[in-house]
Amino acid sequence: MDIKERALLAHEQWHGKLEIVNRCPINSYEDMTIAYTPGVAEPCLKIKEDRDLSYKYTGRGNLVAVVTDGTAVLGLGDIGPEAGMPVMEGKCALFKAFANVDAIPLCIRSKDVDEIVRTVELLAGSFGGVNLEDISAPRCIEIERRLKEKCDIPVFHDDQHGTAIVVCAALINACKLTGKSIPSLRIVINGAGAAALAIARLLLSLGVSDLTLCDRFGLLYDGNPDMNPEQARVAALTNPRGLRGVLRDAMPGADVFIGVSAPNCLTREDVALMADKAVVFAMANPVPEIWPDEAKAGGAFIVGTGRYDFPNKINNVLAFPGVFRGALDVRASDINEEMKLAAAHAIADLVTPDKLSPENIMPPAFDREGHRKVAEAVRRAARESGVARI
Amino acid sequence: MDIKERALLAHEQWHGKLEIVNRCPINSYEDMTIAYTPGVAEPCLKIKEDRDLSYKYTGRGNLVAVVTDGTAVLGLGDIGPEAGMPVMEGKCALFKAFANVDAIPLCIRSKDVDEIVRTVELLAGSFGGVNLEDISAPRCIEIERRLKEKCDIPVFHDDQHGTAIVVCAALINACKLTGKSIPSLRIVINGAGAAALAIARLLLSLGVSDLTLCDRFGLLYDGNPDMNPEQARVAALTNPRGLRGVLRDAMPGADVFIGVSAPNCLTREDVALMADKAVVFAMANPVPEIWPDEAKAGGAFIVGTGRYDFPNKINNVLAFPGVFRGALDVRASDINEEMKLAAAHAIADLVTPDKLSPENIMPPAFDREGHRKVAEAVRRAARESGVARI
Repeated sequence: MDIKERALLAHEQWHGKLEIVNRCPINSYEDMTIAYTPGVAEPCLKIKEDRDLSYKYTGRGNLVAVVTDGTAVLGLGDIGPEAGMPVMEGKCALFKAFANVDAIPLCIRSKDVDEIVRTVELLAGSFGGVNLEDISAPRCIEIERRLKEKCDIPVFHDDQHGTAIVVCAALINACKLTGKSIPSLRIVINGAGAAALAIARLLLSLGVSDLTLCDRFGLLYDGNPDMNPEQARVAALTNPRGLRGVLRDAMPGADVFIGVSAPNCLTREDVALMADKAVVFAMANPVPEIWPDEAKAGGAFIVGTGRYDFPNKINNVLAFPGVFRGALDVRASDINEEMKLAAAHAIADLVTPDKLSPENIMPPAFDREGHRKVAEAVRRAARESGVARI
Repeated sequence: MDIKERALLAHEQWHGKLEIVNRCPINSYEDMTIAYTPGVAEPCLKIKEDRDLSYKYTGRGNLVAVVTDGTAVLGLGDIGPEAGMPVMEGKCALFKAFANVDAIPLCIRSKDVDEIVRTVELLAGSFGGVNLEDISAPRCIEIERRLKEKCDIPVFHDDQHGTAIVVCAALINACKLTGKSIPSLRIVINGAGAAALAIARLLLSLGVSDLTLCDRFGLLYDGNPDMNPEQARVAALTNPRGLRGVLRDAMPGADVFIGVSAPNCLTREDVALMADKAVVFAMANPVPEIWPDEAKAGGAFIVGTGRYDFPNKINNVLAFPGVFRGALDVRASDINEEMKLAAAHAIADLVTPDKLSPENIMPPAFDREGHRKVAEAVRRAARESGVARI
């Protein structure tokens, strides 16, 4: 059987990748008087007096809602909320497997920004955090921004910030190998969707100064009339040399190419225009912007992709479990830039100097200790940046 | 330690009565290619073609949302959505323990009927059913009615219909002992809130013909100006003798008293006015309308309460697990009158003739086989009434 058939069969057999089990015994009327009426009235009354006690007496503090409207599921596009459910269940399974976070899918039958925001806002009291997932751009950016304002729990759009964190981690380790400093880098990001814009912002926070983005219509620069408002905000902070034109116009002398765009849109010849010790992160999935062997043939020193079957897997799964574990542990009111940068550095540091090589800049995902270290770094950053509530 | 202290301590130790665990292995990149990308794209695409396949490839078909706005939690009143969470978690734990239904609490931060309806409606694609819980009357009636119209999954307000089912079950068994036929009964319901109105409707479906309700303002009768619209609908179907006045005016000759009202509002003298072999179901919780020994002293032949520590526990937990198990099993589009009546008869039949006595008209809750039989009856009724979808 090929992977498609195996996945279908497995999903049919699982009949749901998640199960809800009881942590309290329900074996007698005596048990019910404690877990249910009349005993349950006591924690209810305590929480009524102090809403924060819901973190003490219920499972809310370890529970994350994985929220989608099904409009940008994987590379499949707008397939609807029900069809997005297998991905959301999978995401929840990763949360549990890597960081013991309880997560539950909420697939919303609306594409209206106001309705999605309101729905999540109204449910925020049931959860410790919200992970937005596979919502199409630019709506996802507005939805996240508004929810961050309205909710007293952390809201995190993984497609944006999880991606940004792992790209920063990859870049930190690439710099250790190329010997180049982060402020000295010239970076080109191909793609100017939600992930690309989040990567750009986090790279700026990381200290990158020369960064240019490229969308289908060409390079982003301050004043480009083709840009949407989200792109205009980032354009005002990037492209310091005022480059205009298409992707190839930004490639000469670039130290780093970051692709969050489309299959096969970067050529060997484009890579050949880059600076010495060029770094190529080709993250379009499943078919990257350029295959690793082609990039190497063009002169790339380090190549990373989002795929599991090549070296240097730049995959969100390295970030979101530890990020939420850390945020939940200190009851953070937000997942801020400091926490994201701390996660990026922690992920990079998981690759010890003796293991670091151009073929190994990213740590393995299946290292629970690694996720624990990311969580520890995120907890520390939350405390230092003042968003930890315990 | 008393029960309050024990419940608080237990809730603190559980730190959430529910846990979400994985049914799929996540131990290798290979596992991730099946449970997550890229394999997960296949079930997504299948569901995109046929939305009903979400029942095959995800856990939706066994997942129930337990929804509250925290406005009528236990007898505690409007304590807010966060404070309602311990009860909702407990309810979910009962669903799992008694019927292997996965259930998750959703506590909504709004008391607005439109907003609550819209929130649940938008999430219906993530669940196989919705159990409304502890929402104040008369809003709960409107919320349920509108959700039943809008949702393609069963919606069930347990405080109304779970209660109605177990009361009908108790009544069926009481009639076996008194030798009275259901159509011949004179029944008084004290209380005219959501539960009382649902009990009245289901009793009518069961064949009761002489039924009178009493609210704080007095007896319900067609045209009573004190009634709300929900009460007016039921008044038009009940009180065939046109009684007016207060509770005591309806008691003479009554065969059955059903209390879903307030503590200690029925006296021994009231019971003494009832017919021979009087039946008293005093279900106010935790303090019933009359204590069993008082009712007996007034001449009651059979007394039931909602409490675990007296005989004849008329408790919803006998109904909702099997009702949802049955509805989910046949993917019912609704939980209708036929299914509720089937559940009532099935619950009654769990008390075999050799066990049936005035002190034992209700089956034990901790009998998994009993819940399975209720589910079986509900499945059959769903098929026969045309709401089963598989």
